[in-house]
Amino acid sequence: MPQPNKIFLLSEHRDTYETLLTEKKLPDLCITDKPYEAQIILADPPLLSQRLDEFSQLEWVQSTFAGVNALMSRDLRQDYTLTNVRGIFGPLIAEYVLGYSIAHYRHFHRYHQQQQNKQWQPHLYTSLRGKTMVILGTGSIGCYLSTAVQSMGINTIGINSTGIPTAGAEFGQTFHINELTSAFKQADIVVNTLPSTPHTHHLLNESTLSHLERALLFNVGRGDVLNNEELLLALDNCWVEHAFLDVFEQEPLAETHPFWSSPQVTITPHIAALSFPEQVSEIFADNYLAWRDGFSLRHQVDFNKGY
Amino acid sequence: MPQPNKIFLLSEHRDTYETLLTEKKLPDLCITDKPYEAQIILADPPLLSQRLDEFSQLEWVQSTFAGVNALMSRDLRQDYTLTNVRGIFGPLIAEYVLGYSIAHYRHFHRYHQQQQNKQWQPHLYTSLRGKTMVILGTGSIGCYLSTAVQSMGINTIGINSTGIPTAGAEFGQTFHINELTSAFKQADIVVNTLPSTPHTHHLLNESTLSHLERALLFNVGRGDVLNNEELLLALDNCWVEHAFLDVFEQEPLAETHPFWSSPQVTITPHIAALSFPEQVSEIFADNYLAWRDGFSLRHQVDFNKGY
Repeated sequence: MPQPNKIFLLSEHRDTYETLLTEKKLPDLCITDKPYEAQIILADPPLLSQRLDEFSQLEWVQSTFAGVNALMSRDLRQDYTLTNVRGIFGPLIAEYVLGYSIAHYRHFHRYHQQQQNKQWQPHLYTSLRGKTMVILGTGSIGCYLSTAVQSMGINTIGINSTGIPTAGAEFGQTFHINELTSAFKQADIVVNTLPSTPHTHHLLNESTLSHLERALLFNVGRGDVLNNEELLLALDNCWVEHAFLDVFEQEPLAETHPFWSSPQVTITPHIAALSFPEQVSEIFADNYLAWRDGFSLRHQVDFNKGY
Repeated sequence: MPQPNKIFLLSEHRDTYETLLTEKKLPDLCITDKPYEAQIILADPPLLSQRLDEFSQLEWVQSTFAGVNALMSRDLRQDYTLTNVRGIFGPLIAEYVLGYSIAHYRHFHRYHQQQQNKQWQPHLYTSLRGKTMVILGTGSIGCYLSTAVQSMGINTIGINSTGIPTAGAEFGQTFHINELTSAFKQADIVVNTLPSTPHTHHLLNESTLSHLERALLFNVGRGDVLNNEELLLALDNCWVEHAFLDVFEQEPLAETHPFWSSPQVTITPHIAALSFPEQVSEIFADNYLAWRDGFSLRHQVDFNKGY
């Protein structure tokens, strides 16, 4: 009988994961509460970053988040395989972006206010059809989003670090990141899905945002891709008509931050795409069976790239 | 030189239509302000219904609306060809239904209220993926809506008077109107796109609505398909969790109506799909060229069916 593999669970939703993994009856796997015994960790990155040294037998970490920044710091060990969750966020991000875009262009908030006053007053509007969306990042989220919004008649431009179209040709056009400003000149809607890396830090700043004209701006990637101070300037100048922000450099956003009270900013508390434990467990189970049989894992993170 | 055809414009947006038609330079067509000269009328049906007898040379009426009820009354003449506008509403209706569905399931209103209080508080939610939408009416609007929501992972059931799937197979399943209640038992979202006819009058009533369980109900068809009193009962019993109403038997909705102050009802002032004059003019121009050359017209209304 083979020696069972030991997994340590380190998550805000630990109990849910224990139930889900137990139900799956994965072969040769048992849950341990002793860090020094575990070869595998299923973890929320911010929690793990504080305890990484306790795991002397560590081989593989399955992150429960897409964002693994917390584990990228140079003073943390990188002697293990790190996998994250991907592919499950596309539909949730697409709902968020489409829902808020429609609510904006179709005056949902205004009609809600009118209803409070029992006021029947139509307003002109424009359709999403024919608008252009610039999507920063052509990974799984960007690809899903592009396909979904194209079905609503939106033209899409994908931005990535190569300028090469994706294998599935999900974007109407693909621009190199160096051509960002020419893409911005055509944009009605901009959606950032980029991860946090030294190359993307404050990519959305006065210099780039000034090429927009009354655009909607979504940040559903990482908080530090956007320079907050310079977004305020972009809103004042109507380069950006409205910003929908789900991620921030500091979360929760400080109570004193001017974003809270700006009518041009919609703040959501990092919910554009949640990792539902059911889906994370599915990804883990598939990866576990591959790992046990010596095959390579899906969704591996490259410590050099940071994603 | 042929005798020019004369068109009379009778619309709230008369001046816009005059500009648009003049720009199109349609052959052998001139605008007249003398009703007795006109063979053709481009008209908003409610305005025309009061003046139909003034047009002694009338051959063809192009309605600027989809809804032509105002011209269906038995005491009005029906000795002319009536065409309406179709095919341009699908995208606008799909935006309305998707936008409000996402806003509901993803708590947009709650996050807006939290922002006023500078409160960072995530809430669980469900995705549209895997939900079931029952669409009453399998005409051009229903077909477009079905295709659009399927791309967001929603399963669709179309309801029509034959139970026969549409030629384009736009619906996941198609049920006969007599099977409405078995469709309702599966419904997360119900969308009425049906026209007003004797057969559809108060089709949505206590007896049919009681088969729903916490569904979202959209009325973007005609006001009198829904029994208002019985919807209030359905809301009280949570057969319907929230109703999104764009059309009413009496418009504007009376200020005294209980819908205005119900937190379970969203009222919009008949804007789910507007006839944009640009698009109506395109449809008219195509039809005019066919009419002039003796070909049959698109989007003809059958006075017996009422649509």
